[in-house]
Amino acid sequence: MRTRISHQNVEDIAVGGAVLGSGGGGDPYLGKLMAQRAIEQYGSPELLPLKEVPDRALVMLPAGIGAPSVIIEKIAGGDEAVGVARALQKHLGKKAYAVMSAEVGGLNGTIPIQVAARLKIPVIDADCMGRAFPEVQLVVPTLYGVSATPLVLADEKGNEVVLHTVNNEWTELLARTIALKMGGIALMALFPMEGKIAKKATLPGMVTFCRRIGETLRLARQKKKDILAELLKVTKGIRLFRGKIVNLDRRVEKGWNLGELTIQGSDDCNGESMKIDFQNENLIARIGDKVLATVPDLITILDQDTAFPITTEGLKYGLRVTVIGMPCHREWRTPKGIALAGPHHFGYNIPYQPLKANGGAR
Amino acid sequence: MRTRISHQNVEDIAVGGAVLGSGGGGDPYLGKLMAQRAIEQYGSPELLPLKEVPDRALVMLPAGIGAPSVIIEKIAGGDEAVGVARALQKHLGKKAYAVMSAEVGGLNGTIPIQVAARLKIPVIDADCMGRAFPEVQLVVPTLYGVSATPLVLADEKGNEVVLHTVNNEWTELLARTIALKMGGIALMALFPMEGKIAKKATLPGMVTFCRRIGETLRLARQKKKDILAELLKVTKGIRLFRGKIVNLDRRVEKGWNLGELTIQGSDDCNGESMKIDFQNENLIARIGDKVLATVPDLITILDQDTAFPITTEGLKYGLRVTVIGMPCHREWRTPKGIALAGPHHFGYNIPYQPLKANGGAR
Repeated sequence: MRTRISHQNVEDIAVGGAVLGSGGGGDPYLGKLMAQRAIEQYGSPELLPLKEVPDRALVMLPAGIGAPSVIIEKIAGGDEAVGVARALQKHLGKKAYAVMSAEVGGLNGTIPIQVAARLKIPVIDADCMGRAFPEVQLVVPTLYGVSATPLVLADEKGNEVVLHTVNNEWTELLARTIALKMGGIALMALFPMEGKIAKKATLPGMVTFCRRIGETLRLARQKKKDILAELLKVTKGIRLFRGKIVNLDRRVEKGWNLGELTIQGSDDCNGESMKIDFQNENLIARIGDKVLATVPDLITILDQDTAFPITTEGLKYGLRVTVIGMPCHREWRTPKGIALAGPHHFGYNIPYQPLKANGGAR
Repeated sequence: MRTRISHQNVEDIAVGGAVLGSGGGGDPYLGKLMAQRAIEQYGSPELLPLKEVPDRALVMLPAGIGAPSVIIEKIAGGDEAVGVARALQKHLGKKAYAVMSAEVGGLNGTIPIQVAARLKIPVIDADCMGRAFPEVQLVVPTLYGVSATPLVLADEKGNEVVLHTVNNEWTELLARTIALKMGGIALMALFPMEGKIAKKATLPGMVTFCRRIGETLRLARQKKKDILAELLKVTKGIRLFRGKIVNLDRRVEKGWNLGELTIQGSDDCNGESMKIDFQNENLIARIGDKVLATVPDLITILDQDTAFPITTEGLKYGLRVTVIGMPCHREWRTPKGIALAGPHHFGYNIPYQPLKANGGAR
């Protein structure tokens, strides 16, 4: 069913995206503001089911790259996101039929809405991860051999770069180093692909899923239900820990938010502490030597009172938080998926142990 | 007069280019081999006087970027240089009428010969510096407001990048950071410009001048003349110092050969030592606090016996050398030229004192 993305939908998609963003994907408040403004100015874009994209239609992904902490001080104006999409269209000599999210997340999940509104084309109800990841090549299309390039990258100053690479690892290396030089953050249009490929190599229904998570949170809050319980139900997530952030080491380095945090457990946690490492996204959650969850499964930190997701740039000493784990999409649980984005890729010498879902796999 | 570039010319141009290269521009031996091989395979390209380039003809500059030390171990195969030129042609949707050197120098002065031979187009008898410089924006076309972009940059692996920047300083920042990530060195095609602009904003006769310097050295050696005296006559250079390299601190850093060397004076030097700082090119020559020469004037280190130029990657502890200074092109002695490429640009808090030419300015 084709629908239009409303003002309210945008907020729900941004919040739901941040829940699935595992700490990454950018700030949902900024994402919401930017996409709502675009809708006010240019009208609501259509949300197009993945299966309705014509085989030969051109699909592209507009997304931000860099350290989310930088975005807080250097907000993209909207012109950059639509600028890179237009530049990629020009480079390919073809108009985009629709845009799609590279990743769900507060900002990267809503940038396509901005771009779609301005270009007056639909947003596809899909994404390429079912979560957020800190590197360009960590997407399902890579598992299907789809190239991230030609890719256009631009900054707010007017510098523009077109990449053609031999593989998606090289795309990541070059795009990140350029984004870093551009000031820590840049906008991209990437993974131009035909509808036929998109239907095979991306994850359908992800925008709707984000919207549903956001809605669930909002309605539970309005109706004074148990917000966390409602959230865990809709995401098939489990509660991993509860406590107070007592240590936070976060640095903007190599084009990411890198760091780790320690959460001292609440009274019901037997005096234990949880450590979480992050690279834009939360990578691993441990209590002592015991690993509770790792990539590619989702680890999200929520405000203890509101169950509102806190992205890695929003973490603060003293915050009282609930940590939840959610099972990743089944594409990431294949041997190829684990090899691409499992614990080993991030330097952890531990095997991937699939997180048990609350009520079965997603 | 139009001529063809012979096998022998290539050698003379490479050696003469290395003399004017001020330590940079790449190794003349590698430059010679690569261009001679291209001539053997594809025929001799024509050397076209700058004034004969049609106003609307497309001119472009193929050149290497990075630390020359890296080239010694990672020699470009020739395919990259012609590949970037073809990619820039494709990007612009126009064929190049001729190519030109960005800088004279052992390698960057001969890369255009390779490319011209393979594309079967002429090499223009001109360059953009009259020397070599370590940064993309340090060219005479920058003084005339010519943009270095669109620029294509590629590595031997098959990665290719197209840059559009807001100014030539940004081109340098982005191109260098990409070249560094590509492995320390990359090939570029840049400064696409019309013949009309090239005739105003580049330096005519530079290939012929390099050839003449190379010839002078070769013939002086054959005829057992005073090689240094002959070289100083043709370059209007002066001898600055003579001695032995007793200290060399050279590192491949940030995409350059960076460092300094100390030359202990020969018996006729009153026990003095000379220090030379370099960033690919020799920047400043000092004896104690006394500055003998600085950028934009040319400082070149020669083998004491053969007067053969030694580029910064070829410097070695123990070498007996002669240091010569040569006046830069008059474009660099204008207030704009000094502001762009004078001592201040390289972090030296000293005024530019023009080197006195041997027999008047070039």
